[in-house]
Amino acid sequence: MQLDKVLHQSEVAFEQYKTISLADRASFLRAIADQLEGIKEALIPTACEESNLPEGRITGELGRTTGQIRLFAKYVVDGTWLEATIDHGDPGRTPVPKPDLRRMLVPLGPVAVFGASNFPLAFSTAGGDSISALAAGCTVVYKGHPGHPKTSLMVFEAIQKAIAEAGLPQGVFQHIEGGIAEGQALVQHPAIKAVGFTGSFKGGKALFDLANDRSEPIPVYAEMGSINPIIAFDKALGQQEQVAGQYAQSLTLGAGQFCTNPGVIFVPSSIAASFAQNTGKFLADTAGQKMLHDGIQTAYNESLDKLATSGELKWIQKAAGKETGHPALALTDLDTWIKEEALQEEVFGPFGIVVGYDSKEALLQAARSLQGQLTITLWASEEELADQGALISALQEKCGRLLFGGVPTGVEVGHAMQHGGPFPATTDSRSTSVGVYAIKRFARPFAFQNCPDSLLPDVLKDANPLGIFRTMDGVVGR
Amino acid sequence: MQLDKVLHQSEVAFEQYKTISLADRASFLRAIADQLEGIKEALIPTACEESNLPEGRITGELGRTTGQIRLFAKYVVDGTWLEATIDHGDPGRTPVPKPDLRRMLVPLGPVAVFGASNFPLAFSTAGGDSISALAAGCTVVYKGHPGHPKTSLMVFEAIQKAIAEAGLPQGVFQHIEGGIAEGQALVQHPAIKAVGFTGSFKGGKALFDLANDRSEPIPVYAEMGSINPIIAFDKALGQQEQVAGQYAQSLTLGAGQFCTNPGVIFVPSSIAASFAQNTGKFLADTAGQKMLHDGIQTAYNESLDKLATSGELKWIQKAAGKETGHPALALTDLDTWIKEEALQEEVFGPFGIVVGYDSKEALLQAARSLQGQLTITLWASEEELADQGALISALQEKCGRLLFGGVPTGVEVGHAMQHGGPFPATTDSRSTSVGVYAIKRFARPFAFQNCPDSLLPDVLKDANPLGIFRTMDGVVGR
Repeated sequence: MQLDKVLHQSEVAFEQYKTISLADRASFLRAIADQLEGIKEALIPTACEESNLPEGRITGELGRTTGQIRLFAKYVVDGTWLEATIDHGDPGRTPVPKPDLRRMLVPLGPVAVFGASNFPLAFSTAGGDSISALAAGCTVVYKGHPGHPKTSLMVFEAIQKAIAEAGLPQGVFQHIEGGIAEGQALVQHPAIKAVGFTGSFKGGKALFDLANDRSEPIPVYAEMGSINPIIAFDKALGQQEQVAGQYAQSLTLGAGQFCTNPGVIFVPSSIAASFAQNTGKFLADTAGQKMLHDGIQTAYNESLDKLATSGELKWIQKAAGKETGHPALALTDLDTWIKEEALQEEVFGPFGIVVGYDSKEALLQAARSLQGQLTITLWASEEELADQGALISALQEKCGRLLFGGVPTGVEVGHAMQHGGPFPATTDSRSTSVGVYAIKRFARPFAFQNCPDSLLPDVLKDANPLGIFRTMDGVVGR
Repeated sequence: MQLDKVLHQSEVAFEQYKTISLADRASFLRAIADQLEGIKEALIPTACEESNLPEGRITGELGRTTGQIRLFAKYVVDGTWLEATIDHGDPGRTPVPKPDLRRMLVPLGPVAVFGASNFPLAFSTAGGDSISALAAGCTVVYKGHPGHPKTSLMVFEAIQKAIAEAGLPQGVFQHIEGGIAEGQALVQHPAIKAVGFTGSFKGGKALFDLANDRSEPIPVYAEMGSINPIIAFDKALGQQEQVAGQYAQSLTLGAGQFCTNPGVIFVPSSIAASFAQNTGKFLADTAGQKMLHDGIQTAYNESLDKLATSGELKWIQKAAGKETGHPALALTDLDTWIKEEALQEEVFGPFGIVVGYDSKEALLQAARSLQGQLTITLWASEEELADQGALISALQEKCGRLLFGGVPTGVEVGHAMQHGGPFPATTDSRSTSVGVYAIKRFARPFAFQNCPDSLLPDVLKDANPLGIFRTMDGVVGR
């Protein structure tokens, strides 16, 4: 069977790839970035054509993709992420000698990665999941997204060239195509040791369940999006028109096709209607954009149709048509929003709900009943928040990133980013899929006991030849 | 319902407990250790009586328990474990301002802990799971082990006194009793955010499945034991009698009731029979010990009866009786051992299999077919291992701790210990249940974006008032 062959190659390649030096791993990653830049003249128009995303956006996304690859390359050699920890032994200790113990993170093995349609570069073939798995020392079997097959193969060829340049086996990164059945078979294959996924709740949860039903369960890191509430206090809404414009802009960015799209905003009920009207004006002036593919357009249309019949929403702006992703906005009150679970589900596209709340107490209750989110945003002055410790505490339990001002769209790639959150935003709140800590998803701790120095990896040798930060007998240092 | 009340108290207590300072959390942990020492005159005989373990062992275990509590107290205030990471913003960056991002680990919430019968103190009520959860800032609902109910309640009362002394709500640590149904209801309760478990594969896997079937799946850290192979090369067996004695001693320690008990040893086939005979002599001289409880004795007897009828083993030493845990030893060859999966299953008790191997190549194949283990031990000289890179690499994929000499029983509590391993040794190879890193099981990353300094926790304030190691704009320092 073809898949068996692919996975066998991945396992064989893993045995070699996991042993190369951190510096060589970093060079390999940089070579991928170089190869991608080398094909940008052909890659950018192809990605634009397949995703319906404008050239400026795709150009920016390529920069984001190569930037994050180079960030991982730097982070890999830094080595702090390996959590190298040494407890020296004491053969003379009584009643029993103290062993010499040396612990570090080691790669999990071959990883299956599923890319996202909304980021054909940054969250796809050479996106954050693939690159962080490679950075951790894992091999990757990537399942191409059917939404951008040519783009995916072009990126794959660039990675193959980088592999050849680095003198690594081609099994380090492999590309398979197919539909749901092929994806399921990949996750169920015994050689796969972890899964990275970005996409819908339905898709991510299905892979999570499959992975847990294996005879050897494996971790699944599925980032499944959320509705990313914004909570606005009075003072932040002082300049209503400006603030409404900011919300409308974030809501319609990229036709609302971001996992951090703010699908709901909580506003004091005294001004909820006027805020909604102001936002609606901006949306009326925002042209519909072609969505990523027909399936997403259809899903968006169906979601709006379903909500239109619910009777629980006052429509401020109805979508101006069904051929592209036209913005839409509705208004309701907090009690209704909490009672009707359908209103809390993500609508992938430029649709928002303005929810009026009567009091801070009601808001606190609502916060405690929220589902897990990638982000929650507070629009409030420092003074207004001074006595809102309980609210901030409750919101912290419900998200991975809490913003004070600004908008959740635009996920900075860096060291301190957390892009993940409590279920159902992701299947594993202990992880991030953006930023350098994403590497830790694909590693596990391993300890050597009383191992001769000659047999230890450089990371753990007494002389610290790599000069990395380590914890030595309980003290961090180099 | 009673359980609802317990969990409601746990949630309410969590809101307060998670906010106390690291120093106060550490003081609280030390108070638990002090309270336990204060009741040792009554606690030790009770634990001995309920577990059938000798006084010396229980006295040592109490020292281990209080020692690890104080280690966690020290580790909590050290703060490195919080992975505090700050990326300063740049409002002037174009085309978009760079946000200020600050990331740290935050506690998961109320944790359910299930203790082990074989460590009535160190892996039970105030054992590693409970203490690491408290250290992380989680509240705990502990399900008492029916094997040592009085011991469990005594320890619980000691913790309650420490809670009162610290001025914390009693909901920080609660104790429930019951059987399997009560344990299942606890894991299924929506307020529970993670599970710690030490025990059998059957029990751990059942809780893992329940947790994944919840509408909000949660992590389960189940340490389920393994057979902890020892692999012996020729030179290590030069002084056969001495080495056989070392193996026999580790195999029968505590009546074999350790999760790191070495249930199988691989020996060159040319000397397998004589090694087995030598080991058998030691075992014949080792008296049977009363096992932890009747259920374990029965399970041990049944396992040996089942193996006795398999016809695949040559018995070197049969158990001298069924009333206590008498040592037993059998001999077989590598092909048979690999073919018969029943021989690879853990027998909880003082039973071992000596497996003869014909070549290093056969050993490598066997290594690649091993199930996940907590530990694997190599008995070989540095010279013998110099060309065994492939074997060491294969073994690394199959365990959490690789020992060079010595025996796997005796799990050192420290910074560098890894007590965990690939499934089925544990349900989560990314974690350890012994050593300071156990704390990370009960935390998740969380990021503040553009948060005013006044609203940030001390861990992330610009001035670094706690003086902890942090990653600042990509550089580790204080």
